[in-house]
Amino acid sequence: MSLVTFGETMLRFAPESGERIETATELEFRTAGAESNVAIAASNLGVDAVWTSKLPDSPLGRRVTREVRSHGVEPSVVWSEDGRQGAYYVEDGGEPRGTNVIYDRTDAAVRTTTPEEVFGAIDLAAGDACYVSGITPALSAQLEATTSALFERAQEAGATTVFDLNYRSKLWSPAEARESCEPLLEHVDIFVCAARDARTVLDREGSDESICADLAARYAPDVVVLTQGADGAVAIDGDGSIHDQPAFPAETTDPIGTGDAFVGGFLAASLESADVAGALEYGAATAALKRTLDGDLAVVTPAEVSRVIDETTDGIAR
Amino acid sequence: MSLVTFGETMLRFAPESGERIETATELEFRTAGAESNVAIAASNLGVDAVWTSKLPDSPLGRRVTREVRSHGVEPSVVWSEDGRQGAYYVEDGGEPRGTNVIYDRTDAAVRTTTPEEVFGAIDLAAGDACYVSGITPALSAQLEATTSALFERAQEAGATTVFDLNYRSKLWSPAEARESCEPLLEHVDIFVCAARDARTVLDREGSDESICADLAARYAPDVVVLTQGADGAVAIDGDGSIHDQPAFPAETTDPIGTGDAFVGGFLAASLESADVAGALEYGAATAALKRTLDGDLAVVTPAEVSRVIDETTDGIAR
Amino acid sequence: MSLVTFGETMLRFAPESGERIETATELEFRTAGAESNVAIAASNLGVDAVWTSKLPDSPLGRRVTREVRSHGVEPSVVWSEDGRQGAYYVEDGGEPRGTNVIYDRTDAAVRTTTPEEVFGAIDLAAGDACYVSGITPALSAQLEATTSALFERAQEAGATTVFDLNYRSKLWSPAEARESCEPLLEHVDIFVCAARDARTVLDREGSDESICADLAARYAPDVVVLTQGADGAVAIDGDGSIHDQPAFPAETTDPIGTGDAFVGGFLAASLESADVAGALEYGAATAALKRTLDGDLAVVTPAEVSRVIDETTDGIAR
Amino acid sequence: MSLVTFGETMLRFAPESGERIETATELEFRTAGAESNVAIAASNLGVDAVWTSKLPDSPLGRRVTREVRSHGVEPSVVWSEDGRQGAYYVEDGGEPRGTNVIYDRTDAAVRTTTPEEVFGAIDLAAGDACYVSGITPALSAQLEATTSALFERAQEAGATTVFDLNYRSKLWSPAEARESCEPLLEHVDIFVCAARDARTVLDREGSDESICADLAARYAPDVVVLTQGADGAVAIDGDGSIHDQPAFPAETTDPIGTGDAFVGGFLAASLESADVAGALEYGAATAALKRTLDGDLAVVTPAEVSRVIDETTDGIAR
Amino acid sequence: MSLVTFGETMLRFAPESGERIETATELEFRTAGAESNVAIAASNLGVDAVWTSKLPDSPLGRRVTREVRSHGVEPSVVWSEDGRQGAYYVEDGGEPRGTNVIYDRTDAAVRTTTPEEVFGAIDLAAGDACYVSGITPALSAQLEATTSALFERAQEAGATTVFDLNYRSKLWSPAEARESCEPLLEHVDIFVCAARDARTVLDREGSDESICADLAARYAPDVVVLTQGADGAVAIDGDGSIHDQPAFPAETTDPIGTGDAFVGGFLAASLESADVAGALEYGAATAALKRTLDGDLAVVTPAEVSRVIDETTDGIAR
Amino acid sequence: MSLVTFGETMLRFAPESGERIETATELEFRTAGAESNVAIAASNLGVDAVWTSKLPDSPLGRRVTREVRSHGVEPSVVWSEDGRQGAYYVEDGGEPRGTNVIYDRTDAAVRTTTPEEVFGAIDLAAGDACYVSGITPALSAQLEATTSALFERAQEAGATTVFDLNYRSKLWSPAEARESCEPLLEHVDIFVCAARDARTVLDREGSDESICADLAARYAPDVVVLTQGADGAVAIDGDGSIHDQPAFPAETTDPIGTGDAFVGGFLAASLESADVAGALEYGAATAALKRTLDGDLAVVTPAEVSRVIDETTDGIAR
Repeated sequence: MSLVTFGETMLRFAPESGERIETATELEFRTAGAESNVAIAASNLGVDAVWTSKLPDSPLGRRVTREVRSHGVEPSVVWSEDGRQGAYYVEDGGEPRGTNVIYDRTDAAVRTTTPEEVFGAIDLAAGDACYVSGITPALSAQLEATTSALFERAQEAGATTVFDLNYRSKLWSPAEARESCEPLLEHVDIFVCAARDARTVLDREGSDESICADLAARYAPDVVVLTQGADGAVAIDGDGSIHDQPAFPAETTDPIGTGDAFVGGFLAASLESADVAGALEYGAATAALKRTLDGDLAVVTPAEVSRVIDETTDGIAR
Repeated sequence: MSLVTFGETMLRFAPESGERIETATELEFRTAGAESNVAIAASNLGVDAVWTSKLPDSPLGRRVTREVRSHGVEPSVVWSEDGRQGAYYVEDGGEPRGTNVIYDRTDAAVRTTTPEEVFGAIDLAAGDACYVSGITPALSAQLEATTSALFERAQEAGATTVFDLNYRSKLWSPAEARESCEPLLEHVDIFVCAARDARTVLDREGSDESICADLAARYAPDVVVLTQGADGAVAIDGDGSIHDQPAFPAETTDPIGTGDAFVGGFLAASLESADVAGALEYGAATAALKRTLDGDLAVVTPAEVSRVIDETTDGIAR
Repeated sequence: MSLVTFGETMLRFAPESGERIETATELEFRTAGAESNVAIAASNLGVDAVWTSKLPDSPLGRRVTREVRSHGVEPSVVWSEDGRQGAYYVEDGGEPRGTNVIYDRTDAAVRTTTPEEVFGAIDLAAGDACYVSGITPALSAQLEATTSALFERAQEAGATTVFDLNYRSKLWSPAEARESCEPLLEHVDIFVCAARDARTVLDREGSDESICADLAARYAPDVVVLTQGADGAVAIDGDGSIHDQPAFPAETTDPIGTGDAFVGGFLAASLESADVAGALEYGAATAALKRTLDGDLAVVTPAEVSRVIDETTDGIAR
Repeated sequence: MSLVTFGETMLRFAPESGERIETATELEFRTAGAESNVAIAASNLGVDAVWTSKLPDSPLGRRVTREVRSHGVEPSVVWSEDGRQGAYYVEDGGEPRGTNVIYDRTDAAVRTTTPEEVFGAIDLAAGDACYVSGITPALSAQLEATTSALFERAQEAGATTVFDLNYRSKLWSPAEARESCEPLLEHVDIFVCAARDARTVLDREGSDESICADLAARYAPDVVVLTQGADGAVAIDGDGSIHDQPAFPAETTDPIGTGDAFVGGFLAASLESADVAGALEYGAATAALKRTLDGDLAVVTPAEVSRVIDETTDGIAR
Repeated sequence: MSLVTFGETMLRFAPESGERIETATELEFRTAGAESNVAIAASNLGVDAVWTSKLPDSPLGRRVTREVRSHGVEPSVVWSEDGRQGAYYVEDGGEPRGTNVIYDRTDAAVRTTTPEEVFGAIDLAAGDACYVSGITPALSAQLEATTSALFERAQEAGATTVFDLNYRSKLWSPAEARESCEPLLEHVDIFVCAARDARTVLDREGSDESICADLAARYAPDVVVLTQGADGAVAIDGDGSIHDQPAFPAETTDPIGTGDAFVGGFLAASLESADVAGALEYGAATAALKRTLDGDLAVVTPAEVSRVIDETTDGIAR
Repeated sequence: MSLVTFGETMLRFAPESGERIETATELEFRTAGAESNVAIAASNLGVDAVWTSKLPDSPLGRRVTREVRSHGVEPSVVWSEDGRQGAYYVEDGGEPRGTNVIYDRTDAAVRTTTPEEVFGAIDLAAGDACYVSGITPALSAQLEATTSALFERAQEAGATTVFDLNYRSKLWSPAEARESCEPLLEHVDIFVCAARDARTVLDREGSDESICADLAARYAPDVVVLTQGADGAVAIDGDGSIHDQPAFPAETTDPIGTGDAFVGGFLAASLESADVAGALEYGAATAALKRTLDGDLAVVTPAEVSRVIDETTDGIAR
C-alpha cells in the first residue's frame, strides 16, 4: 500500500528571516510543491511514496528530484526538453508584514503533462492512495484533464483518491476554481478542504460542522476533512460521524507547508489503517511539528509524532 | 516637492542574533544614520529624497553612498581627505539583556561640515521638507552652527523644516542637548520629540497631550509630534487640535530605526498633502513594518503601508 | 581564591534554528561541558578559574582548549594518545518539537583520567572552590573514583567542594545515579540539585523547601541549592535559613547551559564573599542572561549581571 | 555626455565555488545583463549612465533596479503587470568542468518593449553614447524592431551608437543572428564583436586584423573593436589605423562579465575623449580588474584602472 | 545489472578553505565513505546502485542515508541500537600545509556487521558488480570475515567482484593490510590498487606496467587497474593487454574522493559493457570532474563525462 | 624564558574573497597586529608569550583579548576609558587588483600608553625576548618614547630586544621612520628589516648580503635579519657569518601576516636555543604555513613546521 501524488514541484527561494527579497544578496534554495510535500511527509512517516511530474531535463529539474528522493520518495519524472522549472519566492515576516509568496510558474514543463505520461510513470494498485491538490488543475486545461483521468484510473484500480482543494487566489478566481473542481469531486474518496475555501470557492455557509456534512452530502466522498488553520480540523466519516480535532499548540518558525504536512500525516495514518479520528490526530501532530521547521517539508519521524500525541515532550531531552 | 536631509551616516556592524560581539567571527555590514534612515523610508514610499553629508573618500565612504542610493535617495556628498567614516556596533538581545549600541564616531569626517559645503551640495525650494535630527548638532559645535544655518536657509526658501530631537545619552547630557536644541527650535516647522526626551531634556511634565500642547506653545512650530514608543504618538496641528495615534501591533525583529521609519512615513504622507492625522497613521504603519525587518532601514512599499492601515493582511498571501 | 573544575568538555554541533540535523549541510561548531561551562561563567564574571580534563592530542582536543582559554579559563589538560574527543549534537526546536540532544561520548579520552593525573594538573588551596557535576561520575567507574578522590583532596586542602547532581537520563538510570552520588555527598560542601532530580534520583517528596531541608539534614553539606528551572531556586544555608530566589524573566534563545550559568554566577558571588541569598540572586541573573545567548556559554560581564539585578535595563542603550 | 543602454537585466543565481546547483542549499543572489553591466562599469568609472528596460512590478523587478542604482546608474524602467523577471543560473567550475550558464528568460517582461516605451523612458542628446548588445534583438522580434528604432533615433539625436554582437548560442543560431544583426549595423557607429563571433556568425576569415578591416569596410561604422578573449583586442579607427591591445594579466575569480567590463571601460574613456588606442587600453584594464571579482559587475574605480595601466601595483598596499 | 557496495559511510566535517579546525566556528557537514562514494558516482552516471551498511538508528545515521539516497543510490541499511556513527574531519590546505584527515571511527556500528546482515539487505544477480574497498576489512575482524563471505557469495551468484585495496596508514600497517587482503584477492575479479600501495603493502617493485602484470599473474583476477594519482592509471585486461590512461588535466578544488570517482566511472562504463580501455578513460574523466568539486562525491552527468573525453569544453557555455 | 611583545592590535574586517568592501553585506571579523601576531605564532609553537597594549574597556577591546588569549598568549592589557579600538579593513584581490588595506587607527587607545603603564603590565627577566615592531613608534610620539623606554628596561633586565622595522607608508614617510627608528636601534639585539625597507627607509644600497653586513656594522645589534619577501631571508649572526634562507614554496591564500609569522617562528626557535641558521629555517617554514591560512595569524603546530622543514608532506594524510 503506497501513496502516489501528481503535481508541480517548484524551486523555493527565501531570504533570511528579517531580510527582504529586494535587498537580499543570498537566498535559501529549497524545493516545494503541495503534492511532493504530502508525499514527503508521508514517506518520512513510513509510507512508500511516489511523486510524479514533468520537469525540464536540466540541473534545475534534477535539483528537485534530488531533494524529493532524499526523503525516500521515488520521483517518477517525465523529463522534458520544453518548459521551465517553476519557482516561488517567499518572504516570511512577522505581523503586520505577514508572509508573502511570489509565484514564478509561467510555462512550467508540468503544464503539458498528459494522462498517458502520468500512466507511463506510475502504477496504482488496490489499497493505494492517490493524491492531487487543487493547484494542479489550476495550472492548465491539460492538467485539469489529466487530473480527472488520473482520478478515474485510480478508482478503477481500487485506489483511494484524495483531493485537497487548496485554493490559490494568485492562480485563479473562486468561480474558476469551483467550475474546475466540482467535476473532479465525482471521483474523490477523501475530500480535504479549508473551511475558508469551502465558503469562498464552494459558497458554503454555516458552522464548520454543518459545512462538513453539507459537503459530504453534496459531493458524496467517503470522508470530508475541513481544515481550520490554527483551530485544527473537523471531519465526517463514512458513517456520518463528525470528528473534531483541535490543533496542537506550536511555536511557528515557518507556516508554509503546514496544511500539506497535515494531509501527509493524515494519509500515513489512514494507510496504516487508522480510523478517521486517529488519522486527524496524527495529521494534526505532524502539522504542529512542521510549524517548527523552516521550509515546506515535514522532516519528522513517527516517534516524534507519537510523542506530540502523547504529550510527553518535556523540554530538553538529554 | 522633495525631502532633503543632512547628517551622519555610519557603518553598522552586528553579530547574528544570539551571538555577542566579543565572540563573533562574522558581522553583518550595513549602513545607518537617522537622516539617511528618514530619507530612505520616504524614498521607498515614493518621495524624491536627497541626503547630504561629508564622507571620507574611501571604499568605506562609498559603501555608505551605495546603500543610500540603492533605496533611490540621491547622496549629495562632500568627499573629504580628512576624518573617519563613523561606525556603530549593535547587539540585539532579548530581555533581560536588551539591545546594546556601541558608537565609534570619533573624528568622523562629517563633523567639520560647514554651511557652505551643505549649500553647495543641495538645493531647497518652496514646498520641500528639510529634516535634521538632534544627533547632528550633538556631534560638534560646527555641526550645531551648520544645522542652524541650514534651517534658516530652508525657511527662507519656503521649505518646511523638520527636527527630531532624538536625544542620545551616549553623545551628550540632557542639559547640553537642551542648550543646543532650543535655539534651533526657533527655525523648526515640524518638531518631533520622544515623550521621554521631552521630560528628560526639555523638562516637561504632565500627560503626553499636555506636553504636546506645552511644546507647541513654547516653541511655536506648526506641528508638534510626540512619539510614545510602543504606545504610538500624539500630535498637535496648526489649529491646536490634538491627534492620538496608537502604534500598530508588530512582532519586533529589530527595534532600531523604528522612530526614523515613523518620521519617514509621516513626511512621505505630509509631502503628498495628508493632514496631520493621516500622516501620523502613515508614519505609525511604516514604523510597524520596520519592526519586522533587520537593520535600521524601512524597506517597505506604499502598498504595504496602506495594507497595514486597512488591516487587510491575513496570514500568507499566495 | 580560585575555582577549579574537572570534567568532560565536548564538541557541540548544532544546525541553524529551524533546521534539522538530518537535512543540515552546515553545523555551528562550539564546545561545551558542565564543568567548563561553570568555569567559563565564573571567569567571565571575574573569577580565576582552572578547568582540567583529559583530551586527545589532536586538532579536536585543541579546538576545545582554545575556546575554553578564550574565556580566560586556564585549561590544565592531560593530553592523551588514546580515547576520542567527545561530542554532542543539539537541535533546538520550538514546541512541540522541543530540544533534542544526541550524545557521542563513546570512549572519550577523559574516561580514564586517574586521581594522579588530576592532582598533577591542578593545585588546590584554602579558600578555593572545587566543582564537579554528576555527569563526571556517570561517565566511567574510573571517573567515579577520581571524583571521589578529588573531593577528598580538596576538602583536605581547605577548599570548598561543590557538586551539582545534574542527572542525565541518557547516561544512567536514577538508581545508578543515586548509588554513585550518595557516597560523594559525604565530601560535598555545596550541593546543587534540580528539584526534579531530587525527586527522581534521590526519592525525595514534598515541597521544594522541605526537600531542601531534607537534603541538608540527610547529607549534611553546608549549603543545599535546589534549582527549579523556570521557577528559580531555593536554598538552605548553614544556619538552616531557607532562601527563595525567583528566576528573572528572560526571552530564551537557547536554554542549554542555563543551569551551569546559574552555578557559575552563584560561585562567582560566593567566592567574592556574597552570602547565600546574594549568591542565589547573582546566579539567577547570570542564568537569565545566558538564556538570551546561543550556545552553552555565559558570555556576560559583571556589569550586565548587576544591571539585571538592579532592573535598570530599559530597551536600547545608545 | 552620458551613456544610455537598453536591454534585459536578469536575476543571477550562483552556488558557491566548488558546489553544484543540483546539490546547493543556498545561492548567491545578484543581478546581471550585458546592457546594465556596461552601464555599471561606465558609471563606476565616472560616466553619467542610464539603463532602460521593462520589468515586472514586483520585488523581483525592484531587486534589479536597486542593484543597478547602487552603482550610480539611473534605472529608467517601464513597470509591467505582464511578463516574468528573467533569471540565469551560473556554475563556475575549474577545468575540465568549465563554467555553465542556464538561462531562465522565458516570457520576460522586457520582450514586449516598444520603441515608444523606450523613447518615453530616456532622452538622448548629441555627444551621448547609446549601447545595445546583440542579446537584445535575440530575445524577440519586438526587441529587434525596438533596437533598430532606438539606434535610428539615437543617430538622429547626434548620439554615438554602440553595438556589441555578443552572440549567444543558447538564444539563436548563427544564421538567425546574422540575419537580425546585419540590418542593425547600418545604424552603428562603434561595432564591438568577438573575433570568434565574427567568424561564426558573420562568416569572416583570416587574421583578426584583416577581419577588423573587413568589418569596417563592409558595415562602415566609425570604429570596429574585435575582442580576442584572453588575448586582448584589436580595433580599427576612423582613419583606418589598426590598434592592438593585449590583455592585462589577471587571476580570474569569475570570468563572466569581462567583455561587458571591457566595453564599459572603453566607452568611459571614449566619452572622456580618449582616442581609440587609449580607450582600448582603459577597457582592457577594466576587464582585467573585473576578472578578480565575483559576479558580472566591474566594481572598480578610475584610480584602480589607472594603476593597472601604469603597472604600479606592487603586492599589498598598506 | 546493478552495482552493490558494502562499507562504512561517515559524517564528513570540514572548515572553509583557509580556515583550521582548531579555530573554526562553523563546519561543512557532508557524508563520505569509499563504498558509498563509488556507488554515488556510478549512480550519477546512470547505474542502478545499492549501498549497504550498518548505521545507528539516529538522526546521524539518517543524515547519511538521506544524502546517499539523494544521489539515486538505494541505501539498504541495517539499523542498529549499538555502535557509533563514524565521522571524519578534513582540512584542505594548499602546499606546504597539505590536506589533513582526522578519523573518528571508533566503535562504529558498521564494525559488527555479519554476513547474514549483509545477505539480508541485498540481492546479487549474474551481471551485477559487487564492490568493497580495503578500508572495510581494516575496520574489524568481523568486517574482514564479512567481506570475504560477501565476495564468495557474489561470485557464486555470477556477479563481478571488485576490490580497491585503498590502503589507509591511519587504520593499519602495511603488513596487516597485506595479511588481510591477500586471501580476499582469491575472490576478486577486478582488482584496483594504487601503484604506491602495490609497492608499500604488496611489496611489488619495478615499473607500473610490470607491477600490473605481476599482480595479474600473482592474484589472477580478470582485470588489474593500477592507479597512479595525478599520472592516470594503467590496467591489464583478461587478454594480458596493457592499457595506459593518462589523467585529464584538472583544476583541483578538493582532491578527496578522486580515486572513488575513478572507480565509480570505471564501473559505470564496465557495466554498460565498455572494454577496459574505454572504462579507464571514462573513469579518468569522472575523476577529473570530481577534482573541481568540494566534498568526496562525483556529482556529474554522463554528458559531462563524455564532453571531457571529447575535449569539447570551451570556456563558458551560454 | 618567554616572549613579551607590545603594540597595537586591531579589529580586522574583510569581505569574502572576490567581493569588495563597497558592496559587501557581511565581513569576516578577526583581530590582528604585528606584535600580537608575533606572540601568537610563537605561542602556537610552544613559547610562553605575553602581549601588552592599551585597549578601550568595551566589547570591542574584549573581542581582541579573547582572540589573543585563545592562542595561549597572555594579554596583559591596560584598560582605558579613553581612545578608540583601532581597526583595519582588508580586501584581498588577485592580480592586477592586489591586496588593499584601509587603516582606521585614529585616536586608538594604545597611542597614549606610557612606559609606566607597560612596566606595570609586564615582567621581564634574563633570557626573555622583548619584541616591538616599527609600527608602534609610528603611531604617536608617546609610543616612540615608550618603545625606547621598554627596550632600555628590557636590556637592563637581561632580555633580548627584537625590533622589526616593518615600514608602513600609510603611517609615516621614510624620513620620519628613519629619524624615529635609528635611536631605537641602539637598544636592539635582533634587528629584523625588509630588504625593501632597508633601501627605502635606511638608504642602504647594494646586494642584500652587503646591506645585511652594513646594517650590522652601523647599528651593532647581535643579529640582523633581512627579509626578502618571496625570496626568503638573509641574516648575519654575532660572528659575522651570513646565512641565506630561501622561502619554502607555498600556495598563498592570504599573504598578510607572513612576515610576522616568520619573526614568530624565528623567535620560537631562538628561545629554544636554535642558532641563527636554524631559527631562519624555522621562521621560513612557519611563514610558508601561514600563507595557506586566512587572517594574519599563524595557527600552526611545531610538528607541522618540522614537517615542512623535513619536506615529508605528501598530499593527503589519512
